[in-house]
Amino acid sequence: MSQTIEGIAASAGIAIAKAFRLDSPDLAVEKRFVDDPQAEIDRLTAAIDSARTELEQIKAHTEQEMGKDKAAIFDAHLLVLADPELIDAVKGKISTERVNAEFALHDVAHMFIGMFEQMDNDYMRERAADIRDVTQRVLGHLLGVTIPNPSLINEEVVIIAHDLTPSDTAQLNRRYVKGFATDIGGRTSHSAIMARSLEIPAVVGTKGATEKIENGITVIVDGFEGRVIIDPSPEQLQIYEQKWQDYLRQKAAWAKLVNQPTLTADGHQVELAANIGTPDDLSSVLDNGAEGIGLYRTEFLYMGRDQLPTEEEQFEAYKTVLEKMKDKPVVVRTLDIGGDKELPYLDLPQELNPFLGFRAIRLCLHQQDLFRTQLRALLRASIYGNLKIMFPMIATLEEYRQAKAILEEEKHKLVEAGEQVAGNIEVGIMVEVPSTAVLADRFAQEVDFFSIGTNDLIQYTLAADRMNEQVSYLYQPFHPALLRLIHNVIQAAHQQGKWVGMCGEMAGDPLAIPILLGLGLDEFSMSATSILPARNQISQLSKSQVENMIEQVLNMNTTEEVVSYVKDKFKIS
Amino acid sequence: MSQTIEGIAASAGIAIAKAFRLDSPDLAVEKRFVDDPQAEIDRLTAAIDSARTELEQIKAHTEQEMGKDKAAIFDAHLLVLADPELIDAVKGKISTERVNAEFALHDVAHMFIGMFEQMDNDYMRERAADIRDVTQRVLGHLLGVTIPNPSLINEEVVIIAHDLTPSDTAQLNRRYVKGFATDIGGRTSHSAIMARSLEIPAVVGTKGATEKIENGITVIVDGFEGRVIIDPSPEQLQIYEQKWQDYLRQKAAWAKLVNQPTLTADGHQVELAANIGTPDDLSSVLDNGAEGIGLYRTEFLYMGRDQLPTEEEQFEAYKTVLEKMKDKPVVVRTLDIGGDKELPYLDLPQELNPFLGFRAIRLCLHQQDLFRTQLRALLRASIYGNLKIMFPMIATLEEYRQAKAILEEEKHKLVEAGEQVAGNIEVGIMVEVPSTAVLADRFAQEVDFFSIGTNDLIQYTLAADRMNEQVSYLYQPFHPALLRLIHNVIQAAHQQGKWVGMCGEMAGDPLAIPILLGLGLDEFSMSATSILPARNQISQLSKSQVENMIEQVLNMNTTEEVVSYVKDKFKIS
Repeated sequence: MSQTIEGIAASAGIAIAKAFRLDSPDLAVEKRFVDDPQAEIDRLTAAIDSARTELEQIKAHTEQEMGKDKAAIFDAHLLVLADPELIDAVKGKISTERVNAEFALHDVAHMFIGMFEQMDNDYMRERAADIRDVTQRVLGHLLGVTIPNPSLINEEVVIIAHDLTPSDTAQLNRRYVKGFATDIGGRTSHSAIMARSLEIPAVVGTKGATEKIENGITVIVDGFEGRVIIDPSPEQLQIYEQKWQDYLRQKAAWAKLVNQPTLTADGHQVELAANIGTPDDLSSVLDNGAEGIGLYRTEFLYMGRDQLPTEEEQFEAYKTVLEKMKDKPVVVRTLDIGGDKELPYLDLPQELNPFLGFRAIRLCLHQQDLFRTQLRALLRASIYGNLKIMFPMIATLEEYRQAKAILEEEKHKLVEAGEQVAGNIEVGIMVEVPSTAVLADRFAQEVDFFSIGTNDLIQYTLAADRMNEQVSYLYQPFHPALLRLIHNVIQAAHQQGKWVGMCGEMAGDPLAIPILLGLGLDEFSMSATSILPARNQISQLSKSQVENMIEQVLNMNTTEEVVSYVKDKFKIS
Repeated sequence: MSQTIEGIAASAGIAIAKAFRLDSPDLAVEKRFVDDPQAEIDRLTAAIDSARTELEQIKAHTEQEMGKDKAAIFDAHLLVLADPELIDAVKGKISTERVNAEFALHDVAHMFIGMFEQMDNDYMRERAADIRDVTQRVLGHLLGVTIPNPSLINEEVVIIAHDLTPSDTAQLNRRYVKGFATDIGGRTSHSAIMARSLEIPAVVGTKGATEKIENGITVIVDGFEGRVIIDPSPEQLQIYEQKWQDYLRQKAAWAKLVNQPTLTADGHQVELAANIGTPDDLSSVLDNGAEGIGLYRTEFLYMGRDQLPTEEEQFEAYKTVLEKMKDKPVVVRTLDIGGDKELPYLDLPQELNPFLGFRAIRLCLHQQDLFRTQLRALLRASIYGNLKIMFPMIATLEEYRQAKAILEEEKHKLVEAGEQVAGNIEVGIMVEVPSTAVLADRFAQEVDFFSIGTNDLIQYTLAADRMNEQVSYLYQPFHPALLRLIHNVIQAAHQQGKWVGMCGEMAGDPLAIPILLGLGLDEFSMSATSILPARNQISQLSKSQVENMIEQVLNMNTTEEVVSYVKDKFKIS
């Protein structure tokens, strides 16, 4: 009889296939005292060498089968293997404590992993995952245990695992792997992100998939609803096959919108842009019909390294993005570091409340060398496309004026030195601090555009850290106060003939789109994969209809009232 | 020749007298290994006994000379001496590490002090100071060094010290100690708070008073400007004596206002209330002519103990305050714990951003037993005075409705059980989360009153932790966005016939008072000592004049513009 287990919908789609259990090998480690530490160090070195050879093979295979981007994860792994801080610490432990290599490796890696995981930011947690992954591979060699190799799968399957490591996901071959379900993880865990990027239906955080699902049994992975059906009935199979066909038909319809403008049913045009972190994201952006980049997060240029990126490195990255986007607008956000995003080499002080701390523009105005380098790289790249520059975390007009003045100074210096700089660079700000949303009419007289960063604006407006599970219920994008602030920003901008974008997660939410359209938002910036569904949704909305409901929505009392009104009015489930 | 050093103005007034250096004795500790740990434990016990006897004597002397309140600090010290967690840890260290008592005491105390100091909250830092103080006293006995005893001073002096410990300040006899200056400390350090409470002029944080000032030399302590003048010229002496006389004359004028209503020059009446932490604060409240309690912070009932206060204990405290205030309004804020104010016995999770975390009403709605106990105590006390109940950190209407419903339930249960409860208890909320300030019109239909908590509202509106030195420049009470939010709250309340108070530090700021009066604030709640100057200031303002400037102020761009406009218009320096 069929059985259904619930999890978190991590990647849209339906997969129906036989279960393939990817069980983690037993890598239990015992502590032993040794007489000859050097022999243990030699064993460690040999295991590292074998792991390196193996990783290079997997990397080559992945590159060939799935492209260079997907193989990049193994560069990160090879870097971990070559990291003297980690490896020397293990060797040191073997020598001074006279323990076996397995134990020393496990113990040291565990400490590093714990350290990175505690940092509570996605990038650092990925580093923790990389170290865990590499450690397991080396431990496998030390213990003589084979690490499973999902790239060997050669029939259509749904993968069932406790969790998928980054190297597991990188090896998944889309030809054979139709979907996956894991015991742990959330919507932003590595495996979920990879699944969306590979467009493989996935359910994570089922809490018991590996307990309940045997190898070879048929399963349905419903990545829309976050559900896994084990041994489905013929009726269930039929229903889900139908659901899948409907979805594919819809996707095909969306695909026709790739090169279309974004128009409401009554002919009002808006812009749908994409958020990106690195130039690598651009192919997905263009494939999904983005009309521009609404948010280029430059932090990634500064992360995962041990010193600041040079002006040249930055220039190359910005130039690549601008050139690939041709004349489409590219809004580059200047460095938004600090808060939960730390750069070890900047040696920032520990803060009691990093979200209310020394970050983004606050840091840049203080460490001006770093800021000026970035601005010079941007200015020099400006001639290669349609650049717009945006400052994050602006809370006062003084901050904006100071940042703008620094930009003008650097521009002047470059022009004096004979460099070419575009003449028409728009300069705007993120609206993510409540003071700026409230005072938008004053800002609108000085900036060229606003981009509302809802992720932070919601956190500050409701005074709730959304990463904190105990108060995450207060992260309410549809709170009437938040909608009023957005309304105020758009009204203020339009009165001065300026445009307003939004680059928080809200901009791509089907429930938010009718409201934002009604409020008059000009540019919606979202994950690339949300663009076509959003364009499709907007084509079915009428501007006058959505405008008509705004007064009512702004006078509602609670999030609940807004959400049920919009769901009901637009038949959104 | 005279020399001037600058510090932080900690307590208003001018003191002119000979310097008395209160030098810290040399309590340097060396680590020694001992053969007989028991002998060290015995030495420790003897030193603790001597310290206890000494403390009891100082306590009795202080009680007699300065009253019970001022002697309370020594109860805290005696508690530290009796704290098994500390003392047993020291004994344990002596036994297991076989070290001398001085070293063990110093080391263990150092760890405890570090732990409490890191907590970054005033209450816990006071505990750290208590432990430091007691440790020094016991170390003095172990090392055979005399700890200076300021209570022996018998001529008029200004005390010069690196820092004053709580026991030092408690021993200061106002008859002889005319003022003090310290090297370290800030406006909220223990010594500064004690100076204001004793009304002794003080300058703290001079960074070098003890280096530059010799015993016996004449000094002027200017507690208005935060300045110390060493060996002043005759002209300087004359100027400062004049300044002091002017101030005393002003104080005498203020004193006439104690039992007066608070009226503007054109006859508009407002209420000036006081913020209190414990019933002990009441005598100062009444002496300074408060018309009510605008904020009774109930946290102190829950702090410095190892379990929750019982309903009876709370009932007694609330009853005392209500009875002493007679028919004057007493606004009691329900528990505002969490954030930086921790209660060890609640075992709250560590948070990445405690100011955006699980605190105040969020915690109370979750741990309802704790909340219901407090509400019952309040309801039962309500018949003894004019009680108003206020919920902190309300961010959504649902939270208010839920808290109100719980209050109604408890009221119903008490009445059912035959208890008396006042019929007319007003129930309001703190406005300290931006969402609530923005949505004030909706809240105004359901609450009885608002009290604007500017300390937090500013932090969230500007997204800056004011305890974080690197961003404390963004703690801007005069930011036009903040003034607009306050304006919105007052307008919304008045449209529904509700009143608005303010209980943040801003309410007592001479620069803010004209603006707040112009915005229509009904109740100003502040430190008791600010009430008379505020009443005096308001008596010289005309309501129509301050109202006229509001539109202009709300349309200013920056804090700087607002501040210089108000300073200029009202001749405030």
